[in-house]
Amino acid sequence: MGKKFTETHQVVYYECDTTGKMRLPMMINCVIKSSEEQSDALGRDKSFISKYGLTWVITHYDIQVSRFPKNGEQIAITTEAVSYNKYFCYRNFWIHDNEGKECAKIESVFVLMGIDTRKLASVPEEIIAPFESEKIMKIKRSPKIVAPSGSQSLNYRVRFADIDGNSHVNNSRYFEWMLDVLGYDFLTSHNLQQVSIKFDKEVEYGNEIESYWDLIEEEEVVSRHQIKIGNQLCAEACMKWTK
Amino acid sequence: MGKKFTETHQVVYYECDTTGKMRLPMMINCVIKSSEEQSDALGRDKSFISKYGLTWVITHYDIQVSRFPKNGEQIAITTEAVSYNKYFCYRNFWIHDNEGKECAKIESVFVLMGIDTRKLASVPEEIIAPFESEKIMKIKRSPKIVAPSGSQSLNYRVRFADIDGNSHVNNSRYFEWMLDVLGYDFLTSHNLQQVSIKFDKEVEYGNEIESYWDLIEEEEVVSRHQIKIGNQLCAEACMKWTK
Repeated sequence: MGKKFTETHQVVYYECDTTGKMRLPMMINCVIKSSEEQSDALGRDKSFISKYGLTWVITHYDIQVSRFPKNGEQIAITTEAVSYNKYFCYRNFWIHDNEGKECAKIESVFVLMGIDTRKLASVPEEIIAPFESEKIMKIKRSPKIVAPSGSQSLNYRVRFADIDGNSHVNNSRYFEWMLDVLGYDFLTSHNLQQVSIKFDKEVEYGNEIESYWDLIEEEEVVSRHQIKIGNQLCAEACMKWTK
Repeated sequence: MGKKFTETHQVVYYECDTTGKMRLPMMINCVIKSSEEQSDALGRDKSFISKYGLTWVITHYDIQVSRFPKNGEQIAITTEAVSYNKYFCYRNFWIHDNEGKECAKIESVFVLMGIDTRKLASVPEEIIAPFESEKIMKIKRSPKIVAPSGSQSLNYRVRFADIDGNSHVNNSRYFEWMLDVLGYDFLTSHNLQQVSIKFDKEVEYGNEIESYWDLIEEEEVVSRHQIKIGNQLCAEACMKWTK
């Protein structure tokens, strides 16, 4: 298994929603920060990766939430670059509270993209070695994500603040677009328990996206999501909720 | 003068724009956090204020920026509740870099609003005393803000994530709406040096706002802004820029 890295974080008010719980996009921002800090500590920061003409991009998250941390709470964020194959790097994150209880576990898939080509590149040994991840042959299959039925959607114009250092919309913003369509009443009366999200295509400044969704309220409450530009699928997700 | 309170903060990637500089809304979030921590330390946290049926609301900022801190930089945030009169509390913030150089100075006006009435209330001695602010009779006049000419605007739908613990759009979001209209090319080629902003009316979930602006590029580069719902003015600002 790979090297683990842990840092503590105090949840602050502007990371929380109106109910005082940490927002999912902010949780993702914080865990990604922990992976950047591990990379820095191992001499594999962005400037090292960019010497290869490459940058890290995330293609998948599978998120299990026991509970979202609250405003003011001290949490521990742990990350581990578990394994990798020719193209895909599998990294896990855990969030624990002060009593050592797990708040969330996040499994993710990282790939390397050519900064100029915007294409998938194979993983150089020099980049991955210090993380001591296990080299595997298998490509992990993520759970299949079913498209929302119907054509219920809201449109969002990409904002300047959505664009990150990779010159595209930051991963965490897709969650904003997907969650926001569900509305205030739903979001303040349901708890998000599980998310599978797949990023298919970069979204850039100047784009206007449609956030499609449907909601199935049977034994389980499930929302299904797609982010599209015209007919082009950019991201898709499935979320499970409890009341 | 009032008691001063200082805390350090490390600027992280998700607080920065695509150029790696701290974004104004995040700078505001961080300074407000420092005032909340001072209030907590002095036994005047939100729960204490809410016993009076009141909550703090900000009506003005005058912001001077020497430079925006960069991703990864360590900064010191200092706040002081300088003075107050019957209705208005004047609080300053400073951001300094590691060498003690001032990055920004922010003057602000806080008022107390009835949680149920949503109306301005006078400042109880019990709330303000621990800050050791000077009691003054004078009401400070902020610089007059001139409206943008013309009717150039973009509309923004209030999102769930815009709503804070006060059940209205958080102050920092108005900056997002005002800055975003200026566009990628302008924002990546100009430095914001000065902002005067006045908040006139709360914006709530379900609202759709228009962000009006104009841009004067003479000796000085000045942008003028209004946030409106229909004919109702919600906020207005003037910003000065250098290339």
